Amino acid sequence: MEAKEKFYPGLDGVVVAETKISFLDTVQSEIVIKGYDLIKLAESKEYLDIVHLLLEEKLPNSIEIAEMKKNLKGEYVIPEELLDMFKHLPENTHPMDGLRTGISALAGYDNNLDERSLTANKKRAYQLIGRVPNIVANSYRIIQKLEPILPDENLSYSANFFYMLTGRIPTSLEEKIFDQSLVLYSEHEMPNSTFTARVIASTQSDLYGALTGAVASLKGNLHGGANEAVMYMLNEAGSVEKFEELLETKLFKKEKIMGFGHRVYMKKMDPRALLMKEALKELCDIKGDDTLYKMCEAGERIMEREKGIYPNLDYYAAPVYWMLGIPIPLYTPIFFSARTVGLCAHVIEQHANNRLFRPRVSYIGERHVFNKTTGQL
Amino acid sequence: MEAKEKFYPGLDGVVVAETKISFLDTVQSEIVIKGYDLIKLAESKEYLDIVHLLLEEKLPNSIEIAEMKKNLKGEYVIPEELLDMFKHLPENTHPMDGLRTGISALAGYDNNLDERSLTANKKRAYQLIGRVPNIVANSYRIIQKLEPILPDENLSYSANFFYMLTGRIPTSLEEKIFDQSLVLYSEHEMPNSTFTARVIASTQSDLYGALTGAVASLKGNLHGGANEAVMYMLNEAGSVEKFEELLETKLFKKEKIMGFGHRVYMKKMDPRALLMKEALKELCDIKGDDTLYKMCEAGERIMEREKGIYPNLDYYAAPVYWMLGIPIPLYTPIFFSARTVGLCAHVIEQHANNRLFRPRVSYIGERHVFNKTTGQL
Repeated sequence: MEAKEKFYPGLDGVVVAETKISFLDTVQSEIVIKGYDLIKLAESKEYLDIVHLLLEEKLPNSIEIAEMKKNLKGEYVIPEELLDMFKHLPENTHPMDGLRTGISALAGYDNNLDERSLTANKKRAYQLIGRVPNIVANSYRIIQKLEPILPDENLSYSANFFYMLTGRIPTSLEEKIFDQSLVLYSEHEMPNSTFTARVIASTQSDLYGALTGAVASLKGNLHGGANEAVMYMLNEAGSVEKFEELLETKLFKKEKIMGFGHRVYMKKMDPRALLMKEALKELCDIKGDDTLYKMCEAGERIMEREKGIYPNLDYYAAPVYWMLGIPIPLYTPIFFSARTVGLCAHVIEQHANNRLFRPRVSYIGERHVFNKTTGQL
Repeated sequence: MEAKEKFYPGLDGVVVAETKISFLDTVQSEIVIKGYDLIKLAESKEYLDIVHLLLEEKLPNSIEIAEMKKNLKGEYVIPEELLDMFKHLPENTHPMDGLRTGISALAGYDNNLDERSLTANKKRAYQLIGRVPNIVANSYRIIQKLEPILPDENLSYSANFFYMLTGRIPTSLEEKIFDQSLVLYSEHEMPNSTFTARVIASTQSDLYGALTGAVASLKGNLHGGANEAVMYMLNEAGSVEKFEELLETKLFKKEKIMGFGHRVYMKKMDPRALLMKEALKELCDIKGDDTLYKMCEAGERIMEREKGIYPNLDYYAAPVYWMLGIPIPLYTPIFFSARTVGLCAHVIEQHANNRLFRPRVSYIGERHVFNKTTGQL
């Protein structure tokens, strides 16, 4: 049997792309984004710096970043008709499904949809990066029968996003932490959603289609849905003792516990989680109540001891978003919004050097024969 | 280097699933669907027989098929609010994008969305199979500012679909040919759209999300978009001579010509194309004008001679749909509608025996270092 005829469940370890965008260097324990360590970037740069890095191949200078910020402010607004469309979605619509429908519908507003050039794709990418926060916040609000919160051009990208999510302008610490969470979620090699986007883009389908598929992927609770699951679990418990009990019970019942482990990191803590853990500490200190922090630490200890697995980003991003006052159903949509830039970079790379994804199967079903004389089954 | 660390562009030849649904047996030249030869099925069975075969693991007896037909008639109608939603999509919306938005929005009407059991998934699959033709036809009509054509429960599944697409009830020959085209498009192993659906489903995301991603994939002109491209090319030419010229020019300019070749079949004609070629002949004979048939044959000869490649299903389905009076922009949406059952079967199989798709990359970009002393880039 040829190597490639072997079945690799989940494509575990299989290389599906040559990329200049990012990779998880497990040997040097580094999340490499365009050549830089993501953790170092998250400690010293803003989200829009990362947007520039991913779409323009370099970190911006002060002129470039000012120009980009100005241009993005012009993209905060989404078509009025799109807001109207959300009114026609049933009240039960899941926020990720509202977002998915919104991104899908947005394609109809692109008058240059058939154009796949780098210039056209980059323009589209910036538009999407400008608009997705608005779609995230207001598809949710409108489906919930709340008034939309229109974007405020006077606010920075992250402060405006925060404002549309919560209805209030963040403190500078809140803005910094929220912005840092966007950096940490911005790009992460080839998770399922990025793979989905590249598979779709490989048919020469457009950016909107690729991103629509990525929302669908990220919704799954083995992927982006994990951050929300973590918060529901923390809230269900409410105290360190109850959380320990809850985890022990789940472990005993062999239930999957969200927020821990990562196929690539395996036996190490996701380095992104550490930054969010520090942010959680800061927010708890200001509030003067470290219950949530203590609960998370307790959970971390139990999972290390019982399963030898460690928190991933979702595990600490969830309580951080909770402390920031963001509604839980928006955690995964925020993850998507932050990842929009990474997804765009991957679609652009796929379109620039394309090969249609068309794999094979191993057939393990029956074979029937037709009666050669009668032609009947 | 380990075998699995090798990069396979497009996952060409790589096995991504063990399946009991279908496979392309290139050795015996057979498209195997649940153990049967698709071509034999298309010659002797109706589309709804194939739906039963794919979802119930066996061909139906007369009681089973009658029951299924009755149940599906109850699913022809889609929510009024969904039709209203389509009114809010911009007029420029591509029919596949309207369809994608519709499938995405449909999720909000499923009150049991978190349930992934076989029973729940099958119920959902039948609902989708019932509703997708209506979404295909009426999202298009509403975006085009045409009145929707409501389904007619008195018509068979395929006759009703045809009726909503064209506004007229098909003759029995037209119904037979249209139904056969649906059989031929129903399932086809692991093309990009099916792979997309399985990749998304592997996050435990739901059927609507998986199908939404599949629409996005099928839209690409390296995939489903090909049938429409073929028809525009045939219409642009209009005669045998002009079509020959057009193809020769495209070949000279090394432009991609849609409707020919298939990664898996390679050096043989797609056996599905033959049945549609016969159908085209029948329709041309009745019309008393075999221009289109002669054009297609001429194209077939040129491509065989010049490139050694053969027509695929799209090449002959396109002129068949043209002869049936179906608007060109609906060809790919029809392909999707027919494939809904195959996609559902794959999502169900993926959910039943899941492993998250999470492949890796080969990083070919730069590495930068931070200044260890200053911490700056």
